Amino acid sequence: MAENKIPYKIYLEENEIPNQWYNVRADMKNKPAPLLNPGTLKPMTAEELAPVFCEELVAQELNETDAYIDIPEEIQNFYKMYRPSPLIRAYFLEKALGTPAKIYYKFEGNNTSGSHKLNSAIAQAYYAKKQGLKGVTTETGAGQWGTALSMACSYFDLDCKVYMVKVSYEQKPFRREVMRTYGASVTPSPSMDTAIGRKILEQHPGTTGSLGCAISEAVEVATTNEGYRYVLGSVLNQVLLHQSVIGLEAKAALDKYGITPDIIIGCAGGGSNLGGLISPFMGEKLRGEKDYRIIAVEPASCPSFTRGKFAYDFCDTGMVCPLAKMYTLGSGFIPSANHAGGLRYHGMSSTLSQLYHDGFMEATSVEQTSVFEAAEQFARVEGILPAPESSHAIRVAIDEALKCKETGEEKTILFGLTGTGYFDMVAYEKYNDGVMSDYIPTDEDLKPGFDAIPKFPGNEF
Amino acid sequence: MAENKIPYKIYLEENEIPNQWYNVRADMKNKPAPLLNPGTLKPMTAEELAPVFCEELVAQELNETDAYIDIPEEIQNFYKMYRPSPLIRAYFLEKALGTPAKIYYKFEGNNTSGSHKLNSAIAQAYYAKKQGLKGVTTETGAGQWGTALSMACSYFDLDCKVYMVKVSYEQKPFRREVMRTYGASVTPSPSMDTAIGRKILEQHPGTTGSLGCAISEAVEVATTNEGYRYVLGSVLNQVLLHQSVIGLEAKAALDKYGITPDIIIGCAGGGSNLGGLISPFMGEKLRGEKDYRIIAVEPASCPSFTRGKFAYDFCDTGMVCPLAKMYTLGSGFIPSANHAGGLRYHGMSSTLSQLYHDGFMEATSVEQTSVFEAAEQFARVEGILPAPESSHAIRVAIDEALKCKETGEEKTILFGLTGTGYFDMVAYEKYNDGVMSDYIPTDEDLKPGFDAIPKFPGNEF
Repeated sequence: MAENKIPYKIYLEENEIPNQWYNVRADMKNKPAPLLNPGTLKPMTAEELAPVFCEELVAQELNETDAYIDIPEEIQNFYKMYRPSPLIRAYFLEKALGTPAKIYYKFEGNNTSGSHKLNSAIAQAYYAKKQGLKGVTTETGAGQWGTALSMACSYFDLDCKVYMVKVSYEQKPFRREVMRTYGASVTPSPSMDTAIGRKILEQHPGTTGSLGCAISEAVEVATTNEGYRYVLGSVLNQVLLHQSVIGLEAKAALDKYGITPDIIIGCAGGGSNLGGLISPFMGEKLRGEKDYRIIAVEPASCPSFTRGKFAYDFCDTGMVCPLAKMYTLGSGFIPSANHAGGLRYHGMSSTLSQLYHDGFMEATSVEQTSVFEAAEQFARVEGILPAPESSHAIRVAIDEALKCKETGEEKTILFGLTGTGYFDMVAYEKYNDGVMSDYIPTDEDLKPGFDAIPKFPGNEF
Repeated sequence: MAENKIPYKIYLEENEIPNQWYNVRADMKNKPAPLLNPGTLKPMTAEELAPVFCEELVAQELNETDAYIDIPEEIQNFYKMYRPSPLIRAYFLEKALGTPAKIYYKFEGNNTSGSHKLNSAIAQAYYAKKQGLKGVTTETGAGQWGTALSMACSYFDLDCKVYMVKVSYEQKPFRREVMRTYGASVTPSPSMDTAIGRKILEQHPGTTGSLGCAISEAVEVATTNEGYRYVLGSVLNQVLLHQSVIGLEAKAALDKYGITPDIIIGCAGGGSNLGGLISPFMGEKLRGEKDYRIIAVEPASCPSFTRGKFAYDFCDTGMVCPLAKMYTLGSGFIPSANHAGGLRYHGMSSTLSQLYHDGFMEATSVEQTSVFEAAEQFARVEGILPAPESSHAIRVAIDEALKCKETGEEKTILFGLTGTGYFDMVAYEKYNDGVMSDYIPTDEDLKPGFDAIPKFPGNEF
């Protein structure tokens, strides 16, 4: 391998970290459908969004025209703490697979939050601080987003209130402690802090909570406390915008060596990582400059792209948030209890949903035992213990590389390695002990979710 | 900060990773005292060491003359998986402290094992493989060494048997699972697998184990199983040799920018990180080319440098290993139960002990609540959650930087950030909850340990 000119890790220089985010919507002919006010069924205005979200973030959310948006210097400075992230040539994995394919991955786990979530957390915290707010509220499930936001708020000296799904709060005490170390308050949800929490606890005294309930609590706290706003780590257009830094860096690193990927692969829950990784490549594809095969990978147990409906639906279980047009399993959908890790959101980014609907990308779903098999194989040869979410992309990258082995094609594969699995060892333990199971919902299982999607003219599916 | 020419992170190029280790003993006038056979009190020969350690590692252990030893290509290849590690300018910390000091740290935590231990683990696994062995045995307490060795053995397809102190096995299930994910067998110690384990369990049925007992079990398994050898992650000369890669990279990165540190700080348990970090700087000091202030930082609860005796002592509690001349608290010393994390070994590297004895370095001890205070301050501004061990160095780096603030001196401080604290959140939780306590042993507490140090002519203290 010594003769190969491409290093194991391609690092950009510090001054090559992007100073603008890329807004893929500017290059889309069919724009993502706007958020709708659930009462009026009319597009949400900036004024209507302002009580929930920070002003500048609302502007970014609604901005469909500017292709590039400057990254404020304070955010650029923070990015230097952990960016540029390495683009890694998977020489070890290629050798282990015996494939002629060339595999690259953009690794976003080399920061304390352990994932790419920090890219948007620091931006959202910055705009909250700039607006003079006291703090922000959010929900977290697996905990990556809550950790990232805690770090970002600590940096800007903002209060950070995290509502953590109770079952995760109890099962992931280490995640909780990282957030506390960064000064965040972490409350198990449902809690007695909010009207919605008290109501849910009264109705279901033994509940261990859900992401939907935690969102409702966080939104309530943000809108009823002076100087607070709610922030979200995925799904939204603004989040994809911030996450474009992943794709921009990856593309710049590849361009340095004259490499053009044939296939780009990312895991997809709400779409934050996938949308960020593919954005500049998708831009070229949308402008007709280049073609790439782009694959979204989702869990078979939460198959919004591959089995969901493309329709307007609520973003939260409590049905208090605006309606978004997206591939959705219905806002009441909860993945089977045996599903490990994240990627458990019922819907999908509106932007990615539109791109998928228009045929600019593919989607596939994989079962979790095969995901952990890929994770372990990857860890053993590449030396990085991947997060379960990231391992969905690894699974498909390996499968594509093995296809190349059969055909002899030397395809170049790029995938996103979103984070590390240090806090997911309970799932690894299940896999190591051979007690992890797979679950694919039947059509019957999916029906109640679909039935709950609101019906109104134009929202047929 | 934008005008500053020194980047936040200095990365060497891949071809600048050292291809030779540096053996500081070659430049020492007073060589470290040799290991002694406890029966004959004569220096251990290569033949005597061969049943326990791999051949090439024995040669490295005894090599006092070659200043540079080639790093085999296979190890260099593996190093590319996670090296070069970044040398980070602590701009954020400097700003938070308001100090004119310039602070740099060499960060070794960006690999899945989470610490610098991998640098020696891969070398030891390589030589075991080269010798045609089936596998290796070792002990682990906090788990960093066991994790690193599991990764290294997985890479070379070697069997890896880890004896993990029972209390850690039970309290750190995630560490255990990472090792299992890399294919290692992890056995809680004391176990029924070994004669010494069965004996200890018979005498103390409820024991939760100790590092000394785990060492004895690992050595027994290595010496009674065909094709196995025992490996150790600290203390030994060979380990310091492998860890010199830390210091060599750090020095190369500083040299690129014409920076000379005034103060070099490392945490010290058995000496693996400290010895590695300081080695090329110490070489210059020993050769009279440059002067540096070098500070070892140890826990007040396990103060081998600052309160130990410089004498020949057993390396293990079971008193089966050779005698080493070192600063020691006695082989039966066990730190107070309230001590969190590693740095709990009763002795210290013979090489570092000699250098300290000869006045080439200083040592200081710090209490753990002040260590965690520094850890949290560092995490919040630098964005890296440090291991408790590493945070000993952070504490003293901050203290020295604050002295510079008082005097106005613009000193350059370099410290070693050995690893991350993801698996130490129980300790952070205690700190966050305000229930962490300090403990400094009294002279009376230390007396039984000292009394057990073997007495023979020339071993007076």
